[in-house]
Amino acid sequence: MSQKANTEVIIGGKVYTMSGYEDEEYLQKVASYINNKLSEINGLDSIRRLSADMRSILLSINIADDYYKALSRVEKLENDVRAKEQEVYDIKHELISLQVKLEEYEKKMDMLTSQNKELEFEKKNLEKAYEDKLLGPVNSSDK
Amino acid sequence: MSQKANTEVIIGGKVYTMSGYEDEEYLQKVASYINNKLSEINGLDSIRRLSADMRSILLSINIADDYYKALSRVEKLENDVRAKEQEVYDIKHELISLQVKLEEYEKKMDMLTSQNKELEFEKKNLEKAYEDKLLGPVNSSDK
Repeated sequence: MSQKANTEVIIGGKVYTMSGYEDEEYLQKVASYINNKLSEINGLDSIRRLSADMRSILLSINIADDYYKALSRVEKLENDVRAKEQEVYDIKHELISLQVKLEEYEKKMDMLTSQNKELEFEKKNLEKAYEDKLLGPVNSSDK
Repeated sequence: MSQKANTEVIIGGKVYTMSGYEDEEYLQKVASYINNKLSEINGLDSIRRLSADMRSILLSINIADDYYKALSRVEKLENDVRAKEQEVYDIKHELISLQVKLEEYEKKMDMLTSQNKELEFEKKNLEKAYEDKLLGPVNSSDK
């Protein structure tokens, strides 16, 4: 597509020399597509009695119809992309709020765990103090 | 698009009667698009010396070019939709694993909370028992 070049294509059995920036491969693809459209149109019984002019207009309309069908696919797909983007946005939002909740839970769990340790420690101390109190006099009298 | 009908369209200054299932609005849109393409082509200086046949081929190639451009947009958008679907899938996966983690955390928090209550209860009992032990004899002697 960089340099202007001449490309020969065969459309409807005639050779045309195209001059342009499109590469040869692309122009041959387009020519082959137009030839298929021509075969489709010429294959219709109702077409035989039409003038060359009318046939060429029918060809244009036929190709334009493919173009509009492709355009409506573009439109549908653009809507699909937008819907998916919205979905991604919504789920990311949900994800972030879950992550925030998770962090809160982690903090709460840490707090509960250290409270537990503290209580365990206090409980052990109390048990020991109680035991000392209970056995203290007995022990001293044993000495 | 339901009933076969005749529609008159003007393309390149000539009236054509189209017979088909497409609705009139659509056919007029297509005709207007082709007329714009014709104006574009006829506006080029290099076109004036070309035969009617060559001009009509150029028209077809021009419309087919629009069609292929639309097709490559379709292809790009289909890839975009696929990529977005993959993104949604991945984030949903992440979301589910966060939800599972959150449920685990909730269970662990419940467990820690009830352990805490249990310890608080045991601690109070011990404190009471210790206090009773400590003050018991004093109290009884007071009686």
